[in-house]
Amino acid sequence: MSFQKLDSLGRKLEALEHALSILGADEATHMAVGGGDKRAEAMANLAGMYHAQATAPEIGEWIAKAKSEDLDADQKLAVGEFERSYINATCLPTEFVERRTAATMRSEQLWRDLRAKGDWDTFLPALEGVVALVREEAQLRADVLKLEPYDALMDQYDPGNRVTGIDPIFADLKSFLKDFVPEALAVQEERLAKRPRKALNGPYPIEKQRELGLAAMRAVGFDFTHGSLAVSHHPFCGGVPTDVRMTTRYRTDEFLSSLMGVLHETGHALYEQGLPKDWSHWPLGKARGMGMHESQSLFVEMQLSRSPEFWEYLLPLVGQHLGEDAIPGWEIADILNEVNHVERGYIRVDADEVTYPLHVILRYELEQELVSGKLEASQIPEAWDAKMTEYLGISTVNDPKDGPMQDVHWPGGAFGYFPSYTLGAMIAAQQWAAMEKAVPDARAQMRQGEFGAINQWRSDNIWQAASRYSTPDLITRATGEPLNADFFKAHLKRRYGRV
Amino acid sequence: MSFQKLDSLGRKLEALEHALSILGADEATHMAVGGGDKRAEAMANLAGMYHAQATAPEIGEWIAKAKSEDLDADQKLAVGEFERSYINATCLPTEFVERRTAATMRSEQLWRDLRAKGDWDTFLPALEGVVALVREEAQLRADVLKLEPYDALMDQYDPGNRVTGIDPIFADLKSFLKDFVPEALAVQEERLAKRPRKALNGPYPIEKQRELGLAAMRAVGFDFTHGSLAVSHHPFCGGVPTDVRMTTRYRTDEFLSSLMGVLHETGHALYEQGLPKDWSHWPLGKARGMGMHESQSLFVEMQLSRSPEFWEYLLPLVGQHLGEDAIPGWEIADILNEVNHVERGYIRVDADEVTYPLHVILRYELEQELVSGKLEASQIPEAWDAKMTEYLGISTVNDPKDGPMQDVHWPGGAFGYFPSYTLGAMIAAQQWAAMEKAVPDARAQMRQGEFGAINQWRSDNIWQAASRYSTPDLITRATGEPLNADFFKAHLKRRYGRV
Repeated sequence: MSFQKLDSLGRKLEALEHALSILGADEATHMAVGGGDKRAEAMANLAGMYHAQATAPEIGEWIAKAKSEDLDADQKLAVGEFERSYINATCLPTEFVERRTAATMRSEQLWRDLRAKGDWDTFLPALEGVVALVREEAQLRADVLKLEPYDALMDQYDPGNRVTGIDPIFADLKSFLKDFVPEALAVQEERLAKRPRKALNGPYPIEKQRELGLAAMRAVGFDFTHGSLAVSHHPFCGGVPTDVRMTTRYRTDEFLSSLMGVLHETGHALYEQGLPKDWSHWPLGKARGMGMHESQSLFVEMQLSRSPEFWEYLLPLVGQHLGEDAIPGWEIADILNEVNHVERGYIRVDADEVTYPLHVILRYELEQELVSGKLEASQIPEAWDAKMTEYLGISTVNDPKDGPMQDVHWPGGAFGYFPSYTLGAMIAAQQWAAMEKAVPDARAQMRQGEFGAINQWRSDNIWQAASRYSTPDLITRATGEPLNADFFKAHLKRRYGRV
Repeated sequence: MSFQKLDSLGRKLEALEHALSILGADEATHMAVGGGDKRAEAMANLAGMYHAQATAPEIGEWIAKAKSEDLDADQKLAVGEFERSYINATCLPTEFVERRTAATMRSEQLWRDLRAKGDWDTFLPALEGVVALVREEAQLRADVLKLEPYDALMDQYDPGNRVTGIDPIFADLKSFLKDFVPEALAVQEERLAKRPRKALNGPYPIEKQRELGLAAMRAVGFDFTHGSLAVSHHPFCGGVPTDVRMTTRYRTDEFLSSLMGVLHETGHALYEQGLPKDWSHWPLGKARGMGMHESQSLFVEMQLSRSPEFWEYLLPLVGQHLGEDAIPGWEIADILNEVNHVERGYIRVDADEVTYPLHVILRYELEQELVSGKLEASQIPEAWDAKMTEYLGISTVNDPKDGPMQDVHWPGGAFGYFPSYTLGAMIAAQQWAAMEKAVPDARAQMRQGEFGAINQWRSDNIWQAASRYSTPDLITRATGEPLNADFFKAHLKRRYGRV
């Protein structure tokens, strides 16, 4: 049976993915410094084996034949996702992939060097090369998938997402934030006048911070029989669903950034740990996409961990793990002053949840124009500055380092990825609202550190669905309505608005 | 060029080995407990890919053609080792390998269960099955390699080792130990009468023991840019030459067993770290074999780390890392009382270096008879007891747990491996003597914690040679004469004998 061949192929690919995931996590956490070259060589070879096996011509025949075999409903869906993966893996000619890989690797290396110097002019030719290749790639994908070029790029990250669906939602959100950012800042100013920010009473020993992070992970449902927490320079959530490798990093002068980072990555981890185990070797059994994955991390980070109810539970744990003098006399409102501080800034990754969408929408708008040819790479600084000035009231015209050079995505050729971040934030808010209908006392449960019912809803509606549905369909099925900005706007108003 | 095809194949196999080695080390050190099933599945799949690639029929043609290509001397040797690997990987029919793998896995699992219970009778049928398969395997290998059956088994572990070479050396050693064990015990008794063993002043915190172990590793030459030390239930030295993964385990009531274990594994690690880097993807670039590998670990453990000179350097480090009260008033002789204690015992892995060879020779003799059919599995307990009584004066007749059930080797089908342990001890002593001719003040250097010249000699004569020569040839080239027991006997006399 051809389906059996696909099933066996899936197990082989899963083994190579397993190796690549664990080797990748190991590289960032436990590898000896001199082990990098051989590790890179080994991983490149394994990735080559993966590509060779995943793109073998006979797979197309297996998929075609499997479609007419006597399969159950899940197997039929599995064939569909095998086909989607196969098309994605084979839609670009090998010659093009090699050209693009070489160019984006060079461009990314150059960016690492020049970003620190803010040297846009030297970097520009490399970026122009990447933009030209991305346009070519978008057209190649569009031709195979019968999509618009930018949609074809987005479809890699969030299957089913289309500009026609996202544009009105982002327009709604942008229009809302135009007035809401000033409101949130004014509310914050009034609040801080009454309750000024407090100074942290560090240093906070790393070992104690680690224990606090583990306690928080355990509370929100991380399964330590299927995962662990280590330290790395850049925090990530990697590994495999049966052995999720999460990392964080620590500063000793404060503990909140590591703790919030741990909770964010725990959101990703819960999704992976919650995927259906029997399908782990099928594309159907994988997490749906980047936007949905980000919704799971932001559900934990934003919907849960930055709420006052969560801190009713967590505040005593801080004293318990860091010591009673860690934050002497702090109340929940003092913590919220810290973790929910709003500020107009240049840097996306440092932005709070109110201003973050404007950073994303700016990039989403610019990269569509870059792909379509309306904008050239040389015009980015001016266009960037115009939008930063319009959306956030700050200028980056003489500061490419903190402007268009801040992100690795474009130097690395990853166009169509940025919208996932803000879609994730909106999906998380919409999920919270849907979950709260099913679990009306969810906030009361949070106060008790009780996340069982909240997680069960997510397991039933998101995690166990894996890749059965497109991103938009999964959202609609889980929350009862198509994605829209209303829930996220309501969330922001509740947390940051004038009451 | 066919040689280029072998070279490329080597890189692919190295990548899979890299993955398997790191995944194996990771499993024992950092894997979440629930990750085991998927890890096993992934590793089995990767091992299958390795086997499929390493045994592809075209490799035989590439080797044949490469032999007449215009190659340099190293490349010619490389072809020879490619051929040896290929023959070893293909000399057993797939049908047989599957049958043997299934049988030894069952037998090993059964052994794990029944060993603790000392239930020989229930275990016997499984062992009989393994013995039958081992006889079949030995004959299959013998036919291909044109060797005697037991030699064909040994050749997997130490290429070039033959019963005709080893028998006289083991006979010499056995005859020496017959008188020497009683002498060493008498000398020890007299010494202990004057200087009784002292009690350790624990507990010794694990973190401090770890620091001491790292200091000892650093002193004898471990390169921390290409390796690390972690904790596992069973200590091992794994990973890859550019990133050696060493482990130890700790008890808090004493620190010497972990420290000596760390030094033993460091010996293995130095060999791996010292292999020629440019050949790491060729069989030629691998360590020569088990006996030679054990000689490197025993060189560090026995020749260096249990010597009085070494402790002149190390004793102050103990105080420095464990605290001045760790072993109050202890002198070097007190340490040596502990680390060089001799005792007739049942268990091979707990044996000291004086009695250890008798445990090995017993097994070497019995497994030759098992392979040839002179002995049946059912007769093992009686034969074992007879030899234990003869060699060590202790009986195991009613104690299979501490007798023939103590080792995993036979249940796992690994016949021909045991001699490597004692060959390693003899090779280490012979290497020390040869090295000392080239570095006459080696003992004085050890007192200063100076191992540069000692390691340079080993690098030049052992490590950099990798698999250029058979085991016997490598010994002769490095030490100037064929392996013999004289140096090991002299070493034992010097350390344990009557002066």
